[in-house]
Amino acid sequence: MSERGDSVEIAPEVARFDPRDAVPTLAWIGGPLDGRLRLIDQTRLPADCVLIDCTTVGQVWEAIRSLRVRGAPAIGIAAAYGCVLGARVRPTSPDAVREALHTAVERLRTARPTAVNLFWALERIGQAADRSHARTAEALLTELHTEATAIESEDRRTCRAIGAYGATLLRGLRGVLTHCNAGGLATADYGTALAVLFTAHEQGQALQVYADETRPLLQGARLTAWELQRRGIPVTVICDSMAAHVMRQGWVQAVIVGADRIAANGDTANKIGTYGLALLARAHSIPFYVAAPTSTFDPTIADGSQILIECRDPAEITHGSGRPTVPKGVSVYNPAFDVTPADLIDAIITERGIIQPVNYDQIARTLRESTRPQAHQA
Amino acid sequence: MSERGDSVEIAPEVARFDPRDAVPTLAWIGGPLDGRLRLIDQTRLPADCVLIDCTTVGQVWEAIRSLRVRGAPAIGIAAAYGCVLGARVRPTSPDAVREALHTAVERLRTARPTAVNLFWALERIGQAADRSHARTAEALLTELHTEATAIESEDRRTCRAIGAYGATLLRGLRGVLTHCNAGGLATADYGTALAVLFTAHEQGQALQVYADETRPLLQGARLTAWELQRRGIPVTVICDSMAAHVMRQGWVQAVIVGADRIAANGDTANKIGTYGLALLARAHSIPFYVAAPTSTFDPTIADGSQILIECRDPAEITHGSGRPTVPKGVSVYNPAFDVTPADLIDAIITERGIIQPVNYDQIARTLRESTRPQAHQA
Repeated sequence: MSERGDSVEIAPEVARFDPRDAVPTLAWIGGPLDGRLRLIDQTRLPADCVLIDCTTVGQVWEAIRSLRVRGAPAIGIAAAYGCVLGARVRPTSPDAVREALHTAVERLRTARPTAVNLFWALERIGQAADRSHARTAEALLTELHTEATAIESEDRRTCRAIGAYGATLLRGLRGVLTHCNAGGLATADYGTALAVLFTAHEQGQALQVYADETRPLLQGARLTAWELQRRGIPVTVICDSMAAHVMRQGWVQAVIVGADRIAANGDTANKIGTYGLALLARAHSIPFYVAAPTSTFDPTIADGSQILIECRDPAEITHGSGRPTVPKGVSVYNPAFDVTPADLIDAIITERGIIQPVNYDQIARTLRESTRPQAHQA
Repeated sequence: MSERGDSVEIAPEVARFDPRDAVPTLAWIGGPLDGRLRLIDQTRLPADCVLIDCTTVGQVWEAIRSLRVRGAPAIGIAAAYGCVLGARVRPTSPDAVREALHTAVERLRTARPTAVNLFWALERIGQAADRSHARTAEALLTELHTEATAIESEDRRTCRAIGAYGATLLRGLRGVLTHCNAGGLATADYGTALAVLFTAHEQGQALQVYADETRPLLQGARLTAWELQRRGIPVTVICDSMAAHVMRQGWVQAVIVGADRIAANGDTANKIGTYGLALLARAHSIPFYVAAPTSTFDPTIADGSQILIECRDPAEITHGSGRPTVPKGVSVYNPAFDVTPADLIDAIITERGIIQPVNYDQIARTLRESTRPQAHQA
């Protein structure tokens, strides 16, 4: 990676929190000019509940890169606030702010390649800077911060809407399987796939959730189980390899996952293992649902073959345990995502409604309803 | 588990070995009356290469239970030698030996429930005792030891035959995927599924092997990668959840696995994840092969629904890493095996030839050829 040579700044731990408390995944603390981005360090959950404060774009880059903050929508929000941190290093004039912003955007673009929300959020902040008539650096920085805040608050509303639409698909079901973490920790709050489970639960539906542990970084075991437990929803963690066996027992009647990028035809990039899960669901005649905001769609690419799949450090696989699990010198392949073809997806649940069947026309119609989420046009 | 109350004796570490050396998975050291069962402690590979010596049936029970020795054929051999260790605690008369043997057999039966080779080996040793006309304890113990040695040496020949038959199925292929460890470490020597790869490699075929890491205990990452590396066969370790993605890339043209118990109709119990892999292989039109000795068949059960699936300690999933990976109080499901229906298996490779198609009649014909492996009748 070209970033290898860059100095990596790690945001310091600034507070601990009680795992039973409602703590936002990420929050801006303070004003636009002197504030900071506070994050839950998700790499340390569930053993340690700590908050870190990012005050530089380098710290935000590192937090995204190393999955301290992860999940497509949360990455987008973190990047938007990271732009504010980057833009304010040259608060001498609007043009100086724009120049610093440009540098920050270029740096943040390299943090992770697959989730399109990152690029979408960076573009929104860039456009806000372009169209601004602010006459001072302070005024422009305040506008950029307002745009980042808008992205965050839209995401909160989006997640609630996804939950409400999605819950209608689960009525009468007893067991649901999910993969990785598409919960509150992957968004500003409430989640995408998990929002659907949270809403169904709030509506009084008794659900048993099976959570794939999700190798190599165990987001399902560590994060999804933690979120479901906090909300009092029964959850059983299984290894990824157990999903087919659980399906065959008849214990789940739906699979629901999030997404990192959805092509124009509905092909969906999501955490590695999703594609296999979709095939297994199909083999057991179990519906397979994707829950994602419209910001996760990338209408510029025709299908999934054009989605860049991030390959991560083999050490994530070999050194996750106390001692190395693979003999020295053995090759390891570590793609972070795979692509599930649209024809294996029974529906995509968005904040604008349920896309079903999943195809180019249905997606185009949903995206056309407005090219941007509502709040952006307000 | 009822065994919880029993005292657990752990065999001591007695030697280290160079990972490049050919060391038998298990070997009897010394004479029938004073010898011991030496095992590679597979729980510590690949980081530590240590040998342990079992001198009591309790130590053998613990070694099987905790997967220091694992793999259906190796479990059978270890249990056979464990019988000798158990039988000799009362060397006062043939009847006393038979009584002690009975106690040992009953204890070893509880070590693990799924692999039928365990019960098959215990029955063979029991039958050897029953039919013996030995007039001294020493003579009977020597006969039992001879039977255990026969089981071991039959397994060595069996593995070579499986390798030779199976290699014919791989001709012209470039990539093969395997799951868990069905190698020399799962048998006396050379393996079942891996024997096929070893033979193809020895015949000059260039193969790239993909090894599922195999959660929760990582036998693929730790053991299969280690064995393939020792033999100079290119191997890439992947997480279990990556198999579908690898198949979709077109990198593998066959999947080959071992087995723990095969029902009369061909339904096959093997390491958890095998069933899902078979479904994924079918979805990609990739042939799916099982390699196993005839001692792994259980003709007393009609189909896989009657195979008891061992559920193991959730801590294998939650505490494999340095710190707990699942929040306290969250439920965890840990089945060690699943059952792959016969119709997903393209062929079963045995020491008597290839069973194809896999069905009741073909299996019955193969098993009828002789009801016991050859050496047993010699």
